[in-house]
Amino acid sequence: MNFASDNWAGASPEVMDAVIRHNHGFAPAYGGDPLSLGVVQRFSELFEREVEVWFTATGTAANSLGLAGLSRPGGVVLCAEEAHVMSDESGATEFQSGGMKLIPVKSPLGRMDPAALSATLARHPEGGRSVPVGLSLTNATEWGTVYPVAQVTELAAIARSRGLKVHMDGARFANAVAALGVSPAEITWRAGVDFLSFGGTKNGCWAAEAIVVFSPGLFQDMEARRQRAGHTFSKTRFVAAQFEGYLSEGNWVKRARHANAMAERLRAGIRASAVARLGWESDINEVFAVIPKAALARLRAAGGAAHEWPGVAVGADEVLVRLVTSWATTEAEVEGFLGVV
Amino acid sequence: MNFASDNWAGASPEVMDAVIRHNHGFAPAYGGDPLSLGVVQRFSELFEREVEVWFTATGTAANSLGLAGLSRPGGVVLCAEEAHVMSDESGATEFQSGGMKLIPVKSPLGRMDPAALSATLARHPEGGRSVPVGLSLTNATEWGTVYPVAQVTELAAIARSRGLKVHMDGARFANAVAALGVSPAEITWRAGVDFLSFGGTKNGCWAAEAIVVFSPGLFQDMEARRQRAGHTFSKTRFVAAQFEGYLSEGNWVKRARHANAMAERLRAGIRASAVARLGWESDINEVFAVIPKAALARLRAAGGAAHEWPGVAVGADEVLVRLVTSWATTEAEVEGFLGVV
Amino acid sequence: MNFASDNWAGASPEVMDAVIRHNHGFAPAYGGDPLSLGVVQRFSELFEREVEVWFTATGTAANSLGLAGLSRPGGVVLCAEEAHVMSDESGATEFQSGGMKLIPVKSPLGRMDPAALSATLARHPEGGRSVPVGLSLTNATEWGTVYPVAQVTELAAIARSRGLKVHMDGARFANAVAALGVSPAEITWRAGVDFLSFGGTKNGCWAAEAIVVFSPGLFQDMEARRQRAGHTFSKTRFVAAQFEGYLSEGNWVKRARHANAMAERLRAGIRASAVARLGWESDINEVFAVIPKAALARLRAAGGAAHEWPGVAVGADEVLVRLVTSWATTEAEVEGFLGVV
Amino acid sequence: MNFASDNWAGASPEVMDAVIRHNHGFAPAYGGDPLSLGVVQRFSELFEREVEVWFTATGTAANSLGLAGLSRPGGVVLCAEEAHVMSDESGATEFQSGGMKLIPVKSPLGRMDPAALSATLARHPEGGRSVPVGLSLTNATEWGTVYPVAQVTELAAIARSRGLKVHMDGARFANAVAALGVSPAEITWRAGVDFLSFGGTKNGCWAAEAIVVFSPGLFQDMEARRQRAGHTFSKTRFVAAQFEGYLSEGNWVKRARHANAMAERLRAGIRASAVARLGWESDINEVFAVIPKAALARLRAAGGAAHEWPGVAVGADEVLVRLVTSWATTEAEVEGFLGVV
Repeated sequence: MNFASDNWAGASPEVMDAVIRHNHGFAPAYGGDPLSLGVVQRFSELFEREVEVWFTATGTAANSLGLAGLSRPGGVVLCAEEAHVMSDESGATEFQSGGMKLIPVKSPLGRMDPAALSATLARHPEGGRSVPVGLSLTNATEWGTVYPVAQVTELAAIARSRGLKVHMDGARFANAVAALGVSPAEITWRAGVDFLSFGGTKNGCWAAEAIVVFSPGLFQDMEARRQRAGHTFSKTRFVAAQFEGYLSEGNWVKRARHANAMAERLRAGIRASAVARLGWESDINEVFAVIPKAALARLRAAGGAAHEWPGVAVGADEVLVRLVTSWATTEAEVEGFLGVV
Repeated sequence: MNFASDNWAGASPEVMDAVIRHNHGFAPAYGGDPLSLGVVQRFSELFEREVEVWFTATGTAANSLGLAGLSRPGGVVLCAEEAHVMSDESGATEFQSGGMKLIPVKSPLGRMDPAALSATLARHPEGGRSVPVGLSLTNATEWGTVYPVAQVTELAAIARSRGLKVHMDGARFANAVAALGVSPAEITWRAGVDFLSFGGTKNGCWAAEAIVVFSPGLFQDMEARRQRAGHTFSKTRFVAAQFEGYLSEGNWVKRARHANAMAERLRAGIRASAVARLGWESDINEVFAVIPKAALARLRAAGGAAHEWPGVAVGADEVLVRLVTSWATTEAEVEGFLGVV
Repeated sequence: MNFASDNWAGASPEVMDAVIRHNHGFAPAYGGDPLSLGVVQRFSELFEREVEVWFTATGTAANSLGLAGLSRPGGVVLCAEEAHVMSDESGATEFQSGGMKLIPVKSPLGRMDPAALSATLARHPEGGRSVPVGLSLTNATEWGTVYPVAQVTELAAIARSRGLKVHMDGARFANAVAALGVSPAEITWRAGVDFLSFGGTKNGCWAAEAIVVFSPGLFQDMEARRQRAGHTFSKTRFVAAQFEGYLSEGNWVKRARHANAMAERLRAGIRASAVARLGWESDINEVFAVIPKAALARLRAAGGAAHEWPGVAVGADEVLVRLVTSWATTEAEVEGFLGVV
Repeated sequence: MNFASDNWAGASPEVMDAVIRHNHGFAPAYGGDPLSLGVVQRFSELFEREVEVWFTATGTAANSLGLAGLSRPGGVVLCAEEAHVMSDESGATEFQSGGMKLIPVKSPLGRMDPAALSATLARHPEGGRSVPVGLSLTNATEWGTVYPVAQVTELAAIARSRGLKVHMDGARFANAVAALGVSPAEITWRAGVDFLSFGGTKNGCWAAEAIVVFSPGLFQDMEARRQRAGHTFSKTRFVAAQFEGYLSEGNWVKRARHANAMAERLRAGIRASAVARLGWESDINEVFAVIPKAALARLRAAGGAAHEWPGVAVGADEVLVRLVTSWATTEAEVEGFLGVV
């Protein structure tokens, strides 16, 4: 009954198999090996256009190195109030960019309000001392919701009209794609996204994250930027192998679909419950549930795990928990949880 | 009729006299001269306790170097939504600190809401990935209002209960002290402030700003930090001389009192006006007035100057202007403005 | 005949086995899992004292995050002229530290000259504007030589007498230990080393590097520092598993011993050669050979690989090449190379 | 008998007069005032071409902000071994640039050896991980010597052939121009210099330093870069006034010529001395003399001042002192010194 996070699972069989399969012989270091070059080509096919791909060790690195690529003195990135880049990365973007400012924009249930984005832009005009250069959207959001194509398009258009570049934090991109039923291209560059943090780790890889760039030439110095940040793996083929297994035969979406389905099963059980309720309706493999404190205690006593979610008011005997399912979650675990609650 | 900013005025006579008076002979560089040492002593007397004083070239430097002194990886500074450190310094604090995050807190009319401060702290618990280490309050605020002693005390107490250090941005500290009728000690360290950006430039100096530190040992490396930022003047006596003239015989408060009085005269005229109104009641030498667009055009045609203030809704034919008086503003200018409007 | 670099090899069987073995079930993220905690304990046993261990994605990250932990404004790190931190990391240490200066010290064949170290320290006295805070030694060096215990001890003592902390870049630490026949403790903390970049990647891991800290409390903020740099793996057990396989049953030294032996075989062949000669005598799995340009062309034509080594004068028809052996190098490859030359 | 440094003198009469003269009425802040605009025009005339001018508070700021304008990840600046930017600015360039590396090049008596420059460039090829982007030359040098036009031209040509931009640190530019008898244009952009730190403070200003840019468009973001560094004076006219007085009627060169002449008188006296000797022949207002320790003690007992110069070997009873003359040095002081020695 482990719902703490999707990063508590190991590597999926297809990812593990690929790592084993490619562990033989010598291969050029630093990305010059055929496997790594082939995976870049695979990304181009997936996104239906030529893309640039930069592997990094973590999603935090992908987000912050990408956003740092937009950096200029006095530059500002706009993001959701509780975006991962704002709250959960220990100031990585400010650091990697040498001091770029992040400004939070009102984002109910994690989705940025277009009017609030416009108002924030209006308060920071070109020529001022805090000039927006980038917009960062998380899809799926930190609240387990998703932006449909139309919303990404609307927000990106507002940002682009002011010359901003648009970033998508896709730590759970697979879950968003699975939930939305759209193509990767539709929800990214066709909707106005310039670059994507493409996450594999939470959905079955060991450590496979990449910055996928849709606008050629967007980043002038990414090779040296990544190198000086310590994110240039020498044995790149190890990351490439993970992505090969991950992207083959639609595995990445299949795994996300499973995780989403397990979450929906949880949501259904909670909707039907007499003692628990949903904090809000979410779309992917994250479920936010208000449960009795006693139920959380029972879960933990039974060896289960779930994180408390701070900052949202609930009743005195209640607690809001985030339940995350993964490619490895079983129906038995879901039923177990519902039984304990 | 120049109300663009108090930094459009030159140096006041007493400041100019002191600069002239101390321009003779040789003096040790970098602050080792008797005049500079004497001015530090003067600050200690002014604040009724031993203080550390660090001269800087600008208020932005004082704010950002001081806050950088609190920096640690993952550290956060809380400030008002439209604090100068947040909006008008091109990311100076993020830069000087190597990437510290600033998080804005709701602050109606520039004064931070204590409940909002507590709520923001609650959302960023110790042990998390964005840990507040400093609170920055501006007094007088960017909206021309002031924090009385009780409000500073309340906010500082909330911050200190979580171990934060408290900074006061005193770019218009003299105007606040004059408006409040308090002693410098009461509104700073006795109310819980750890360090102050003490501004002289806007109130009659050429370029005289200082970080005044009330908590001994607060900053370990400020000497090298200031040096590498290029803010260690070699001919320090030039800054010290300004402060000597500024602080002598209460000149600094007298000059501020004059500027405040000129502003109050403006406010009174506007309150009585049929065509203009106050945007809100302010306390110091900044007046926020809603006037007809035609009146602003007339003012400018007559050689006057005033800045438009963005982001506050007014009528279609109106404009919100900020009018700033200074030590050099005359009653004739004030009457002139009221006449033009 | 691949002698380009030891990072062209894959993962050794024992490392791969460990990764496979630990890929089951759920495990807490970010280092809280039993396997990761056990590996830290393993490091303590290996070094015969309690140590702190910080996994990172790359050796560059280990070096630069560790050295950044010593950073203070105006602080300086001394290193060899051609240290990896000086020449091959794209300014990683300057970047991660927010601008710490690196000063190169004369280091013939990669080993720092104690007199040169003393002279450099003398030119940068305490109280000056460039104050040394750290010494970084690479063992084995970039020139394939090693520092014996006595030399590390001597250099560390000079550094410590001025209050510097001592770092060892151990990207090829296993090769140094194997070559020297010393214990890990003897060549590190017993000789005066405060922290070590312990490299596993070049000697049979996929991506396993760690900062090993011998002086408790040396780094105040490493957890947040690593996090904001994007080097906190979520699925930490994947790194821990590599180290488990690597450190078990002395595998790490055995693998290094093999690589060193293959290199010695190369050196012996070159010493005996009529057309090639050693650039200098090296101690580990790196061989520096002056060979005819035609021989390098033949090697490449035969599918072999070796890097040219810049900056050392050789004859017009000659080239200085660096030949690196690894855990995966076979005698046949060595013989093949000697045959081609 | 004050020879500690030229920054121990105050402001020269023409500078003080200009500051007084321009201290009346209102003037737009941040450089938009007519006086500041006029001074920029004056610089263009002085350098016989259109230039960009950025005022800063200190020479350290001018150097580091200018060099930071060249910054890119993995970028390197080459400079003399004991350049001010290398040794005396507490890492300002590394800091302002967010971590650019400085590499020292052999520079006997402060003048960079062209062969050493070429060799250093050869060791850092394009495409590597430490790519030179800038060359910084100090003229006059830290050793009191000057680069003639031909030497600047030669070094700049070597640098430019690799695409580097060329910076001149002109903290004592006036003294160099006076000593060389060349025009400002000849020794800067006509010789291949892209931008200059033009120092006024040491030669009669209070605090007047500027980055003078000869290559239009060299710096994309200098306005915001300077602002976030806290170097944008609001009352810019105060700096402009100093430069107006300084540059009028050739005052700047006249003052430097006087200082140089006083130094030559010192040198002549020392050359003729039986107990003292020149450490080396210098060209400007800095004299390096080997004197008996007892003589230094006598000087200090008499209220005189001179700095010891570290790192050059002298006899056991001797000391190497740096003697700096200024616009304010009198013949009596020179004779006094010679008498004491």
